[in-house]
Amino acid sequence: MLETQEEFKAKVADIQSQSWYKNPIGFGIARVDRGQLNSDKILQATYPVVNWNENFGSAAVFMDAFKEAGVTVDTSKSEVVLDITDDFVANCIKSFNPYIEEANGEAHKNVQLILNLSALPRELGLSADDFKVVFVFEDANALSVEAAYLKLNALSTGKAPLRSLNLNGIFGLLHNVAWEGNNPIELDWLRANELTLKLTGKYPNIDAVDKFPRFLQHVIPADNTRILDTAKVRFGAQLAAGTTVMPGAAYINFNAGTEGSVMVEGRISSSAVVGAGSDVGGGASILGVLSGTDGVPVSIGENTLLGANSCTGTAIGDSCILDAGVTILPGTKITLSEKAVSAIAEANPEKEIKVLMRGMDFQGVNGVHFRQNSVNGQVIAMRSTREVKLNADLH
Amino acid sequence: MLETQEEFKAKVADIQSQSWYKNPIGFGIARVDRGQLNSDKILQATYPVVNWNENFGSAAVFMDAFKEAGVTVDTSKSEVVLDITDDFVANCIKSFNPYIEEANGEAHKNVQLILNLSALPRELGLSADDFKVVFVFEDANALSVEAAYLKLNALSTGKAPLRSLNLNGIFGLLHNVAWEGNNPIELDWLRANELTLKLTGKYPNIDAVDKFPRFLQHVIPADNTRILDTAKVRFGAQLAAGTTVMPGAAYINFNAGTEGSVMVEGRISSSAVVGAGSDVGGGASILGVLSGTDGVPVSIGENTLLGANSCTGTAIGDSCILDAGVTILPGTKITLSEKAVSAIAEANPEKEIKVLMRGMDFQGVNGVHFRQNSVNGQVIAMRSTREVKLNADLH
Amino acid sequence: MLETQEEFKAKVADIQSQSWYKNPIGFGIARVDRGQLNSDKILQATYPVVNWNENFGSAAVFMDAFKEAGVTVDTSKSEVVLDITDDFVANCIKSFNPYIEEANGEAHKNVQLILNLSALPRELGLSADDFKVVFVFEDANALSVEAAYLKLNALSTGKAPLRSLNLNGIFGLLHNVAWEGNNPIELDWLRANELTLKLTGKYPNIDAVDKFPRFLQHVIPADNTRILDTAKVRFGAQLAAGTTVMPGAAYINFNAGTEGSVMVEGRISSSAVVGAGSDVGGGASILGVLSGTDGVPVSIGENTLLGANSCTGTAIGDSCILDAGVTILPGTKITLSEKAVSAIAEANPEKEIKVLMRGMDFQGVNGVHFRQNSVNGQVIAMRSTREVKLNADLH
Repeated sequence: MLETQEEFKAKVADIQSQSWYKNPIGFGIARVDRGQLNSDKILQATYPVVNWNENFGSAAVFMDAFKEAGVTVDTSKSEVVLDITDDFVANCIKSFNPYIEEANGEAHKNVQLILNLSALPRELGLSADDFKVVFVFEDANALSVEAAYLKLNALSTGKAPLRSLNLNGIFGLLHNVAWEGNNPIELDWLRANELTLKLTGKYPNIDAVDKFPRFLQHVIPADNTRILDTAKVRFGAQLAAGTTVMPGAAYINFNAGTEGSVMVEGRISSSAVVGAGSDVGGGASILGVLSGTDGVPVSIGENTLLGANSCTGTAIGDSCILDAGVTILPGTKITLSEKAVSAIAEANPEKEIKVLMRGMDFQGVNGVHFRQNSVNGQVIAMRSTREVKLNADLH
Repeated sequence: MLETQEEFKAKVADIQSQSWYKNPIGFGIARVDRGQLNSDKILQATYPVVNWNENFGSAAVFMDAFKEAGVTVDTSKSEVVLDITDDFVANCIKSFNPYIEEANGEAHKNVQLILNLSALPRELGLSADDFKVVFVFEDANALSVEAAYLKLNALSTGKAPLRSLNLNGIFGLLHNVAWEGNNPIELDWLRANELTLKLTGKYPNIDAVDKFPRFLQHVIPADNTRILDTAKVRFGAQLAAGTTVMPGAAYINFNAGTEGSVMVEGRISSSAVVGAGSDVGGGASILGVLSGTDGVPVSIGENTLLGANSCTGTAIGDSCILDAGVTILPGTKITLSEKAVSAIAEANPEKEIKVLMRGMDFQGVNGVHFRQNSVNGQVIAMRSTREVKLNADLH
Repeated sequence: MLETQEEFKAKVADIQSQSWYKNPIGFGIARVDRGQLNSDKILQATYPVVNWNENFGSAAVFMDAFKEAGVTVDTSKSEVVLDITDDFVANCIKSFNPYIEEANGEAHKNVQLILNLSALPRELGLSADDFKVVFVFEDANALSVEAAYLKLNALSTGKAPLRSLNLNGIFGLLHNVAWEGNNPIELDWLRANELTLKLTGKYPNIDAVDKFPRFLQHVIPADNTRILDTAKVRFGAQLAAGTTVMPGAAYINFNAGTEGSVMVEGRISSSAVVGAGSDVGGGASILGVLSGTDGVPVSIGENTLLGANSCTGTAIGDSCILDAGVTILPGTKITLSEKAVSAIAEANPEKEIKVLMRGMDFQGVNGVHFRQNSVNGQVIAMRSTREVKLNADLH
């Protein structure tokens, strides 16, 4: 049992200096939901505390606690998922002891977690099978549902930037399940029990059938963030504080989201990112890399308005306006007047602005108003009325 | 204890004649949900009975019951929110006594409410803290969550017309909370308990995070009104009987809605109103005053069709058709043939119809079909095939 | 009590040979939810097992079990709905006896159902009133809620093809109710109890008010089918295995759906059908026969892409692309270059392709890319880049 924080720090330094040890990219303790028929199937992994490029002292304690219990964490693997044991918990407490008294509120969440684990009332019927310790050492393709959930959690809590993680193969890993609230149910279990459940009026109220849970099942948003319908934001999405997601035609997929206070009434497809102060109008559609773009993930700049039912398959800069109902795909031909060329060029001295441009040519061009001329049907670009703040480093 | 209805009426007349007394615009008794951490925070106020410009006898009884209990209602304020006391309830019963026998079904809802309050079983654990009596004397900015909910309720029950109430500052008053069904939860409480809730599998199933509840949490719609997804209608919206709200891209914000039987498959933004017999097609967008209009709240007339994915930022008259995919903003240039000018002018003798008009020029113009010519891209207006019923008073 | 499967088969043959007997189109045993105020009102009928053009042996056993109990099924009617009695259940068991041992898993679902019925624990409080046996002998207008639910179930489970059933009058039959999860509640009951429910904080959490339940309340989708928001698919819709329904602007109405693996991010209106491998983009709208089409139900071919916020009111063939934001109504004039005419004609040798066509002329035309020229606003058709698989029988 360590008695002082100095002893704790010395112990951590010692662990970290051992040859087998390696700091994980991310780690955490997950409560797992298992298949009702096939208990080997992990349907969901819930992390009360997520660590991502942080809290390496706790990581060292966790790994050492396993080592003391006879289980060496193989840090040469991209990820390791281990069963929790009483020994593990007891060993952690011995190391965390100097922090137990101050482990309250926002302080020492991993210590709080271990203490809670050790004190779980027996009547909950939880066992060691319900909890896993998960370490990710390398951002390779996830090999386990637990590691996949850890990555999605890191994205949704904003601990990892959007597009920064390798999510390849995640659709193959996650099981497609029926969600009754936060509770995932195997479809095969529903089939096996359909007859009795329906006869007795106990068939569950299924909210969704999907491989992913919803953002709000795992993440508490900032005080000024609003999500008017939980179905509209998938787990793995990231919403900066101040973002509002309306319930009309909005949707934010995993690995997509906002970088500041954004009004979202349209779709932000997987891999798309919207800058602070922008407004994704009702039914506006920001295309994903799999549909309608040229393969480049779409970024929307800051202070930009995508009008209702507009659509973009290419990046749009800062302080732009895409009029309601207008579609800009990478190959869309856009016509500019001489006046527009000069005004937009003035706001974007480093860009080449011409009288005929393609949608994709506007990447990084700020202060553009995209319209369709209602007299002749021509899609045109003008200087927008929105203020463009030039990058002070460049000018 | 009053014994006859005549005594009741005399008493009410007496109260109303007193100098301190004033009829409230609205009043009611609210059950309040308080913050789980901060019990001074009112998260929601639920009115079993809402009174709006009506039932002044009950208002007088309520105010007198407080006066008798030593609390004088300050009717010079714009609103007053008072704690319920046993004395208040007892005094009300003394006055309501002549109506108790016939207080059933739709009759004497305020009397029923007081009787219910007096008979609340102790095992519910409810106390005087859970109930408030709320009076609004002036349509000023709401100062309390309770008054804000009373106004929203008056709008959603149709007791106050859309756009008729002062809702300024309401976003500042209402707290952003997590909604687990009808139950509002402080985000800070979730944060404080996240670890334990997740570890034990008791994390609540959050439907939404918003300042407003949903319409169906507070309002029972008419028998022929359908709302296929509760997330699609915010509290404070108003739906006339016969309105159907589909679950695709529909949304009706607060202080917006319908004035008759309307099919809603698109967005009705805050302050927008749609007339009887109209159809807001799938994904159609009626813009709000904050986005894309010229600041004038948009009204859609009667018997008008907004096609799928159409968008309007300006008022559209009766018996109009806005083709699927067409956008009309206030400044949109719209071209009319000579034949269209004459046919539309015939249906609108009091309006000036020209060969080139702006979107905003069509306010109050009936029987117009807005299209985009698919050969040359021009946005045009023709006489619609829908029958225009001319205003008999004018012609 | 029959002892062998041979005896069973002989008995079934005997029943089927009797003059009063007729194979039903569909039949099943339903658990019914009744009105809380008016218990004669059937609010919902839930079929643990649906039989549609199949399992005629069980149908014969059911009808014979009624006959033995003194109730003759009038097979000359279009449908018959009967109360379940103990005698009926006992008679069924006597006939089903040879199959009881092997009635497990997917085998002999009707036998399992009868066994479950006979063994319902009394503490559930269920009675004969809660169950009905329903036979549909003719595809006439449904006369009962039970028959309507049987048809919707046959559609949603894929046992009856889309558009194959007579659903006339179904809106008149079904009651508009408040849905609290799977539980339908009479609006009048809510009104009668609103005051007490709200005062005590027990007002139900209403998900929807509609005549139809949701698809997922009655149907377990295939393992590779995903429905990210239950509100998005109405009961009576049909989703082929592999279909994904996203939660943005998607919606699939009853008697509409998919015939193969389809990505659905837009609206599939009642009577519309989408072929395998196609993609209904975000906010895309396939119009129904009641709005914007020329009355012909819209079919979308295989391997076709409807871009984001596109709209079609007419059939689109295989391997087509409708660009994001483009609308094709039956009367839309579409311009083709000489090159496009020849390339599309080559892929569609049996069709007449011209330089100016209407939307409706493209029914059955494959390999077309519909675009709006962004320089001159013209809606054009080109040969799409998608591979068209010519019908081997024709070429």
